[in-house]
Amino acid sequence: MSTLNEQLISTEAHRSIFENEVRKLPLPVCKAFGSAEKPTLVSFVNTDKVLGTKDAATVAAAFPNTVKASANTVLKAGAATAAVTGKRVAVLFSGGPAAGGHNVLCGIKRMLGAGNTVFGVRGGPKGLLEGKLFEVTEADVQKILNTGGFDFLGSDRTKIKTPEQFEQVKKTCIDHKLDAIVIVGGDDSNTNAAILAEYLYTGIKADGSGVQVIGAPKTIDGDLQIRGLLPISFGFDTATRIYAEMVGNILQDTASSLKYWHFIKLMGRSASHVTIEVALQTKPAFTLISEEIAEKKLSLAAIVDQIAKTVIARYRNKSLKHGVVLVPEGVIEFIPEMNALIAELNDALAHHADAFAKLPEADRAAFIQSKLSADNARLLASLPGYVVKMLLAERDSHGNLQVSLIPTELLLIDMTRARIKELDAEVPFNTQNHFLGYEGRCGAPTLFDAAYTFNLGLTAGALILAGKTGYMASINGLTTGGEPLAIPLPGLLNVERRHGKDEYVIEKALVKTDSPAMQYFISRRDVWAADDLFASPGPRQLWGPAARQIPISVALNDAAATLEFKIG
Amino acid sequence: MSTLNEQLISTEAHRSIFENEVRKLPLPVCKAFGSAEKPTLVSFVNTDKVLGTKDAATVAAAFPNTVKASANTVLKAGAATAAVTGKRVAVLFSGGPAAGGHNVLCGIKRMLGAGNTVFGVRGGPKGLLEGKLFEVTEADVQKILNTGGFDFLGSDRTKIKTPEQFEQVKKTCIDHKLDAIVIVGGDDSNTNAAILAEYLYTGIKADGSGVQVIGAPKTIDGDLQIRGLLPISFGFDTATRIYAEMVGNILQDTASSLKYWHFIKLMGRSASHVTIEVALQTKPAFTLISEEIAEKKLSLAAIVDQIAKTVIARYRNKSLKHGVVLVPEGVIEFIPEMNALIAELNDALAHHADAFAKLPEADRAAFIQSKLSADNARLLASLPGYVVKMLLAERDSHGNLQVSLIPTELLLIDMTRARIKELDAEVPFNTQNHFLGYEGRCGAPTLFDAAYTFNLGLTAGALILAGKTGYMASINGLTTGGEPLAIPLPGLLNVERRHGKDEYVIEKALVKTDSPAMQYFISRRDVWAADDLFASPGPRQLWGPAARQIPISVALNDAAATLEFKIG
Repeated sequence: MSTLNEQLISTEAHRSIFENEVRKLPLPVCKAFGSAEKPTLVSFVNTDKVLGTKDAATVAAAFPNTVKASANTVLKAGAATAAVTGKRVAVLFSGGPAAGGHNVLCGIKRMLGAGNTVFGVRGGPKGLLEGKLFEVTEADVQKILNTGGFDFLGSDRTKIKTPEQFEQVKKTCIDHKLDAIVIVGGDDSNTNAAILAEYLYTGIKADGSGVQVIGAPKTIDGDLQIRGLLPISFGFDTATRIYAEMVGNILQDTASSLKYWHFIKLMGRSASHVTIEVALQTKPAFTLISEEIAEKKLSLAAIVDQIAKTVIARYRNKSLKHGVVLVPEGVIEFIPEMNALIAELNDALAHHADAFAKLPEADRAAFIQSKLSADNARLLASLPGYVVKMLLAERDSHGNLQVSLIPTELLLIDMTRARIKELDAEVPFNTQNHFLGYEGRCGAPTLFDAAYTFNLGLTAGALILAGKTGYMASINGLTTGGEPLAIPLPGLLNVERRHGKDEYVIEKALVKTDSPAMQYFISRRDVWAADDLFASPGPRQLWGPAARQIPISVALNDAAATLEFKIG
Repeated sequence: MSTLNEQLISTEAHRSIFENEVRKLPLPVCKAFGSAEKPTLVSFVNTDKVLGTKDAATVAAAFPNTVKASANTVLKAGAATAAVTGKRVAVLFSGGPAAGGHNVLCGIKRMLGAGNTVFGVRGGPKGLLEGKLFEVTEADVQKILNTGGFDFLGSDRTKIKTPEQFEQVKKTCIDHKLDAIVIVGGDDSNTNAAILAEYLYTGIKADGSGVQVIGAPKTIDGDLQIRGLLPISFGFDTATRIYAEMVGNILQDTASSLKYWHFIKLMGRSASHVTIEVALQTKPAFTLISEEIAEKKLSLAAIVDQIAKTVIARYRNKSLKHGVVLVPEGVIEFIPEMNALIAELNDALAHHADAFAKLPEADRAAFIQSKLSADNARLLASLPGYVVKMLLAERDSHGNLQVSLIPTELLLIDMTRARIKELDAEVPFNTQNHFLGYEGRCGAPTLFDAAYTFNLGLTAGALILAGKTGYMASINGLTTGGEPLAIPLPGLLNVERRHGKDEYVIEKALVKTDSPAMQYFISRRDVWAADDLFASPGPRQLWGPAARQIPISVALNDAAATLEFKIG
């Protein structure tokens, strides 16, 4: 066998040239932690920041132990403290994967050191219920450091809600003699962490003490962020850089082949953070922001009219037959008339479920249409068959429309084509469409996400060794050295009525139309619409002079002086 | 306005942090050229390699001037030679964009230096017909060096075939006092270069002399390659690295979310070079190679059966509910029964065009089915409606099926689902599908493509200054220093009967099933099918220790000792 063949076989199983090199990348750590190899164990002290939503009193009653212990006060790293040993800590990934999860685990393991034991939970919350734990070794850290995805542990979307499930978690804690659990997840998972922290507060271990629960803020959607406390969830930077590279490549393609409009739908269930970030990176001709559409109460026809006029103006003024339109995945539910239609459809489908199910597929749309109010019936009738089909498709387990199934980008293309025909039929309009989603969740982390998550892990580990529970780890001040914080989870909880019951939720952070990022975007978008001013952010660099960029929207919203992150 | 806002505005129009830095990257050049800044002008000398196809005699008769001048002999760079000045050279991009085109232009401009004039042709071959030329400055070179796409010049797909078109080219040459044209393109464009070189050989300029024509080998498909002379066309490395990163990310996602099979279609009209390269980079569970399917005469059912059995085996043996299947875009035409069906459909649609066009859409499939042989009628009836619809869709200008419209990945998913149901109905099979295409053509070039194309440009420039015509520039020996070559284009031409006329063509290089790359792939694919052994090649690095990789298939086929390129 040739040397090259042997070299190739040696790259199998996560050992590409890139993967081998990226594992050796040194990571910067916040000053408080000293060094990445032998981090300093820090204590935590109160800041003057106390959290609380409008439902603080209700939450305080429901979370008496954790609220009393934390007084809803944000903590920051304090002085170095003596070593703690003998702790047994389980770490799990919850929900969709995001780049940097592995480094959270590595950071925890590093902070806990040889004197404590870290377990990985296989397959997410379900694995916690089933007690699927295994010990994480220093060799594992060497293997997964700076790599993307959640594949070392796996993940799932099980919500821990029922009394039986809480009992199962307790059993896992007792069976494995756990002292703490770290839940790496989004808004729902951190809500779960808050509830578990309260539930496990006392009476789990033989001495009557409890099991600590710490959260870490993950989601590529970027909808877990708190101005001044949590600049961004991890994974957002990597995902948006991947999407922005692809959008930049496609923009370059439009200006090279000179013939297509590309409509690109970007992943993100509700908020448009991903879309605005990609727009700020690439400067395309047209970008829909769901939150702005909802605020301005724009109709589908009004949105399409704007796109059509942009297409026409670029052609008539600059002879441009090409451009890019960015579409947030969740936009359909932010268009007031579509939202009203979907709400009535949800009701009608639930109410007439049996009759509907018995009908042949061809008759279903007409049947449901007859059950709707006049406005909604008219709107449904105006939509193309492939959209109607998906609007009538099976609901998810919460009875909600599966937004990701709606081909919004195709709907917009077809309606824009029709509108251009009305306004100026000579204008050429050839199109391509894309959906960028799965390719962004598990990419190799950017240097920012790699460093940020490693420090989140160090913070989570230090919180555990300091005996804290019911907090989410955060690093604030990402362009000025980085400050480890602990955010009391009950301080973030709101009460929401769902399925006739009060539920605790961390509200998703939507794009604010008066935010600095949105205001900057608004100040430039007409210029980008009028001519090709796009930029290609290029592939993520882990080495060299272009490796240290942070998300533009985060820099703007934090009033940072620079686009470069600085940790340590 | 804040400093950050100003910084952001300064990134518009191709000035992202990455784009600014990548322009400063030093590029290595072949020893013969000395330095990138002030390259040495070289002469060209004969090698002992003489080219010729089975149609060499016919070609020699049709290309008397260029065949006589070159004797179909490959040239290599010889000694340094004295400066040449006063030449006026036009450069154009033809066909789909590919990363590195800008560097070909930069290389030409550098070699020609201040003493000669380089023109860019706007909008491809059509721009040449219309005389849309502008002078390229050293400032332009600074702007476009190492950037992706063809947007500096634009491109199109006009074929120069008619006597009127040849006259238009001649007029452009005379109007702009051109001495030479460089055509950057694929197999068709280099065929065009050969024809133009012969046509423009004499009698264009006042002194009776001609205009030189030189080709440069571009195509992301990789189907322009000649073992021992032209290792690969440019743009292939960048496109496959972009696709391989996305596929690697998705593989990581499958192993993180633990629930989906992703079917990923990869761009490439005919050959499967892109697909095999991406497979070699990422090691997915299943990869279709069109050429192997044709050679083994596999039916659609047989292919689907193989995929279904892989899905079942992974679940039954390893509890894996996930995996990735790579599908070359052009595979459908390589499946013998589908190819036969498409051929008969092409005939039937042409023969019954009027009757077909008058029918309502719902009746068209049945009508055409009645015109087919029994086997083909049966096959057509077995296919889902969305495939039939595309099989009956409008043909391209050559009367060919538009393969890119066929949702092969969906067809394979639906058939695989049905087959799994027959074989082992309990096996879970949740799917996602993707098409990776446009995002790969205009990415920032890899360091390999950047260096390779700059040296192709230097070679093309030196060939012009040496007075050569009818050659394609090449760099051979890409892991051993790089050797500039000139390949006589008529030596590559075959005669093909098209539309009842003999036409000259450079045959597309398909994947050879006995090639080292294919043999290596075959030796490993069962192992990759049985378990997760995937690797993530990661984002393309322009700096640092992972920046110098060449395509794995090229390294294997060239029997290279290393995966690192070495130029200079």
